[in-house]
Amino acid sequence: MATLSVPTPAPTAVEDAEKLKKAFQGWGTDEKAVISVLAHRDATQRKQIRLAYEDLYKEDLLKRLESEISGDFEKAVFRWIFDPIERQAILANVAAKKGIEDYRVIVEIACVSSPAELLAVKQAYHARFKRSLEEDVASHTTGDFRKLLVALVSTYKYDGAEIDTKLASSEAKILHNAIVEKAFNHDEIIRILSTRSRAQLIATFNCYKDEFGASINKVLSGDEFLSALRSAIRCINSPQKYFEKILRNALNKPGTDKDGLTRVIVTHAEKDLKVIKEIYHKRNNVTLDHAVAKETSGDYKAFLLALIGN
Amino acid sequence: MATLSVPTPAPTAVEDAEKLKKAFQGWGTDEKAVISVLAHRDATQRKQIRLAYEDLYKEDLLKRLESEISGDFEKAVFRWIFDPIERQAILANVAAKKGIEDYRVIVEIACVSSPAELLAVKQAYHARFKRSLEEDVASHTTGDFRKLLVALVSTYKYDGAEIDTKLASSEAKILHNAIVEKAFNHDEIIRILSTRSRAQLIATFNCYKDEFGASINKVLSGDEFLSALRSAIRCINSPQKYFEKILRNALNKPGTDKDGLTRVIVTHAEKDLKVIKEIYHKRNNVTLDHAVAKETSGDYKAFLLALIGN
Repeated sequence: MATLSVPTPAPTAVEDAEKLKKAFQGWGTDEKAVISVLAHRDATQRKQIRLAYEDLYKEDLLKRLESEISGDFEKAVFRWIFDPIERQAILANVAAKKGIEDYRVIVEIACVSSPAELLAVKQAYHARFKRSLEEDVASHTTGDFRKLLVALVSTYKYDGAEIDTKLASSEAKILHNAIVEKAFNHDEIIRILSTRSRAQLIATFNCYKDEFGASINKVLSGDEFLSALRSAIRCINSPQKYFEKILRNALNKPGTDKDGLTRVIVTHAEKDLKVIKEIYHKRNNVTLDHAVAKETSGDYKAFLLALIGN
Repeated sequence: MATLSVPTPAPTAVEDAEKLKKAFQGWGTDEKAVISVLAHRDATQRKQIRLAYEDLYKEDLLKRLESEISGDFEKAVFRWIFDPIERQAILANVAAKKGIEDYRVIVEIACVSSPAELLAVKQAYHARFKRSLEEDVASHTTGDFRKLLVALVSTYKYDGAEIDTKLASSEAKILHNAIVEKAFNHDEIIRILSTRSRAQLIATFNCYKDEFGASINKVLSGDEFLSALRSAIRCINSPQKYFEKILRNALNKPGTDKDGLTRVIVTHAEKDLKVIKEIYHKRNNVTLDHAVAKETSGDYKAFLLALIGN
């Protein structure tokens, strides 16, 4: 349920490359033309356009874009243009180097991706940065955050649907005990979240709610580390609701959190942004299009609205 | 530099299956025939033999072997018959369920395997046990051992040859400081060992030796946790020397450590046992064949000697 709209039949990669070249020529850039091409092509098509452009004009499309566009628009285009796995590797690298400041990006990549996707991101990370995601996260964090984030990005989880209900019940109790004792950094919480499969964890969270009368998320509130735990649980349990909240917070923040806004739209337009949009509309009594249009401007606004499917 | 010897041309899988069937028929089992087939076929051939046997006789070769042979011989054949990745997954599962008792097996699989091999073992683990290696190791260990073992098995390390010499020097100092403070369970020691690439770690260990005048291994001696740290370092730094020591300890132990002896021979016969044998000979002034012949007996002895290339 993507929001990305691609015309059928789509122009060929060569036609698109020619249109972009034309948009770059002369005084200034024809941003509308850039948006009309790039915001309406899927990952494979974007890759083909880059190859065709390089082939035709012997210059790197990314480098050319860098000198043609700027600001939030440029940042958004540079996030968007890569394929999803490559993009996650780049986002992970930027976030890892910032330590805990951008922990949410690390949590999202670790907890929303399937084990196979996370593995592909880590392989792209090796190829691009000549090091591992794990070592970068580990060397830029300390203490409880390191324990949590490194464990989340490291594990190659089982991806099957099998559930052990006894285990779910016993681990719900372990989580509850740690929470009652306010031992939120407890090794057992991190062990359970970081090693159990998504299906098993969802069973455990359901057991928690049944046995202790409240969603585990509701009882975790306090400092930033608790926010990280909560983010991990929400990314595992209900990623689309989680991303709706990221969008809501980004749009409601004075000055708008452009990084958060761009990240969610760009990483979900080709995937599940339609669902996130519906949740947003219900939750906020205003459409996402309307809110984005209100809080952004210029080419950045036009680009985001195109990706949202406006 | 394997010790496994395979005849050329080798019999077909069907011929081998027929020979095995014949060895099982009548009163008792012709163990010599079993050894002459299984101890002289590579992983692909062994797989073909299992398929051919199943096809010809509508029975599982493994099940039949279970009722035909016994004791240490049976255990060794059951370790040997699988292909290397499948075997490591099985060894890891047996070890993980024993918690720290068998920590060496976990350390070996995590630290000797290349990142791609470890990943393949974890994928085989998922397929066979419907869970992850990480969750099994984590749920059967606690404390410092859990921190170390889970970190070692989890990370998908970078496998390139690039080295950052400044980083090697600064992390050698971090290791040295932790060792001076006797903070062996220090998060930084575990972080460095579990996340840095093999090439980077070897550079760091070399820096350590240059700057502090002693091999990092020599300064780590004490309790069982320190042994685990030392095992990890030796598996990264000089796996063949490490395995020579496992063999030496297994053979010198009163009663012989059959599990250790079988494990090293079976997992290295098709890989690098020739090198380990040479190191053993130099170190002990006796050949590995001689030592194995002295400490074992019967079909078990004949099987191991065949794998060693005797």
